[in-house]
Amino acid sequence: MKIELENAVKLLSGFDNVLILVHHFPDGDTLGCGYALCKALQSLGKNARVECSDTISDRYDYITRSVKSQDFEPEHIVAVDVADNKLLGRLQEKYGDKVELCIDHHASNTMYAANTYLDSTAAAACEIIYDIILALGAKIDKDIANALYTGIATDTGCFKFTNTTARTHTIAAELMKAGADYGEINRIMFDTKSKSRLAIERMVLENITFSHSDKIALVTISQQMIRESNIEDGELEGITSLPRTIEGVIIGITLRERRDGKYKVSVRTHEPISASELCSKFGGGGHDRAAGCEIADTLCNARDMMLSAAEQMLSDCGL
Amino acid sequence: MKIELENAVKLLSGFDNVLILVHHFPDGDTLGCGYALCKALQSLGKNARVECSDTISDRYDYITRSVKSQDFEPEHIVAVDVADNKLLGRLQEKYGDKVELCIDHHASNTMYAANTYLDSTAAAACEIIYDIILALGAKIDKDIANALYTGIATDTGCFKFTNTTARTHTIAAELMKAGADYGEINRIMFDTKSKSRLAIERMVLENITFSHSDKIALVTISQQMIRESNIEDGELEGITSLPRTIEGVIIGITLRERRDGKYKVSVRTHEPISASELCSKFGGGGHDRAAGCEIADTLCNARDMMLSAAEQMLSDCGL
Repeated sequence: MKIELENAVKLLSGFDNVLILVHHFPDGDTLGCGYALCKALQSLGKNARVECSDTISDRYDYITRSVKSQDFEPEHIVAVDVADNKLLGRLQEKYGDKVELCIDHHASNTMYAANTYLDSTAAAACEIIYDIILALGAKIDKDIANALYTGIATDTGCFKFTNTTARTHTIAAELMKAGADYGEINRIMFDTKSKSRLAIERMVLENITFSHSDKIALVTISQQMIRESNIEDGELEGITSLPRTIEGVIIGITLRERRDGKYKVSVRTHEPISASELCSKFGGGGHDRAAGCEIADTLCNARDMMLSAAEQMLSDCGL
Repeated sequence: MKIELENAVKLLSGFDNVLILVHHFPDGDTLGCGYALCKALQSLGKNARVECSDTISDRYDYITRSVKSQDFEPEHIVAVDVADNKLLGRLQEKYGDKVELCIDHHASNTMYAANTYLDSTAAAACEIIYDIILALGAKIDKDIANALYTGIATDTGCFKFTNTTARTHTIAAELMKAGADYGEINRIMFDTKSKSRLAIERMVLENITFSHSDKIALVTISQQMIRESNIEDGELEGITSLPRTIEGVIIGITLRERRDGKYKVSVRTHEPISASELCSKFGGGGHDRAAGCEIADTLCNARDMMLSAAEQMLSDCGL
């Protein structure tokens, strides 16, 4: 059932012994939500702890260490930033149909919880948790500010993506006033690259190819490159946006070889080309500026198919 | 003479036929200040125009095109974001000692103007211009919002640098409400790379070397690399921060060969190493985390000197 913010607050006010679930492959937003809400509930005298299906990366230590984990028998299950109970990972079986309250910002939420508060205009779920913590009458202390700032900054690419709103900046200002250590958080989240990431970036820059008067840029990430650079899946995020950032490029294509030999294709475009339309030709889909598809063929054929479809779309637009 | 904000506003209110000067090699902040103030003054029925010593890059077209240039004999000269009249470039001779009002945020301002309003706590001079425009009673229209947003976003690395304050975010929120086209501005400023920049990044990633258990990363940019990539000086900015972004690196060093064969050294550090202390050993200086010096020697010697001084500093700290 979809509920309003005040009902979500009312539910939480009545809860004790709260287990907060975050999504698998946890990112800054789900962790920021989970730990901020946990500390706020604890500060109101309730028992609360966060559980996650996967190991949490060291870089979030400043968030996870700031909240003491409490041992208790859960009475109420709350999920934060979890659009689908499948995203609970290995916790799905145990808790997937027991979530009493879900707080989320994904328009695609499957409404798996008994009660769902959804605000898809929020750039980050942490924006919603900020409102909820204040409505609960808890204080935004330095730890909570750090957690919420992390979610907001990571989900907006440090206020760069178009999901950022005036409200996002207003909340960031309040979190900074509350003591968020934004300089250090930004350094960890946006200014620290692993050597593996550096290695894969070098390889990508070496194999980038241009076509159609340089309006198309294409990059391939092979399994060999992944092995050689020793990069983890999570660290590959963001590389797909590289080809489109090049001046003059309208269609950026990344072909990533999967372990099964199929190619995962990511397309990023500028106007007037629809990435979603291009990918739909190969059974994929997505958004206007970012979409994806899969091709089960050799690299050579996958590349040729994508390039000729992309060239056709540019020609059709007189480009 | 140092003056208060209200005096700066009073002066501007009394001015007509205002020539606004921005600094040479103009960046987003000086241009944002200049064009926003110009349009605000024009909206109050005054004559105003902006002059710059150098050609303004195309990427600021949306700012420069939004303000009509007026032809008049200047009566009052105002400089924005110009810390020293030398930074007026070829306009220094004509106007360097005639600046009646300077509005700036650089603590290093040389007080060359008859009246200076300086707020060194402002992350961008555009934050000050925002206050001034409101105090003048002018409206922040979409064009002015675009210009001011550009200055604030570029001077803070899109709200990432530690000069960002709660106030920076609060003003950004107001500019977005006033219609700033922040998505497109962020794309142009932060997500567009030239092919030259791409080429030099590839070369830099190829020649990066590590020492002292990978706590030091060193990069060389030779004149040959600059020629081969066809990169302009302005586009090299930011590359010096690359070595320090690598996980585990405490001292990042960039050696850039100048046309005269000398090496310009940029040092970026993490705690506890002072970049300024390291560079001072070679007659340079700067800040704790970012500093520079010059070495007139062969590449081999320059590298050895920097590395052994850097290693010594790490060892002295037990690292």
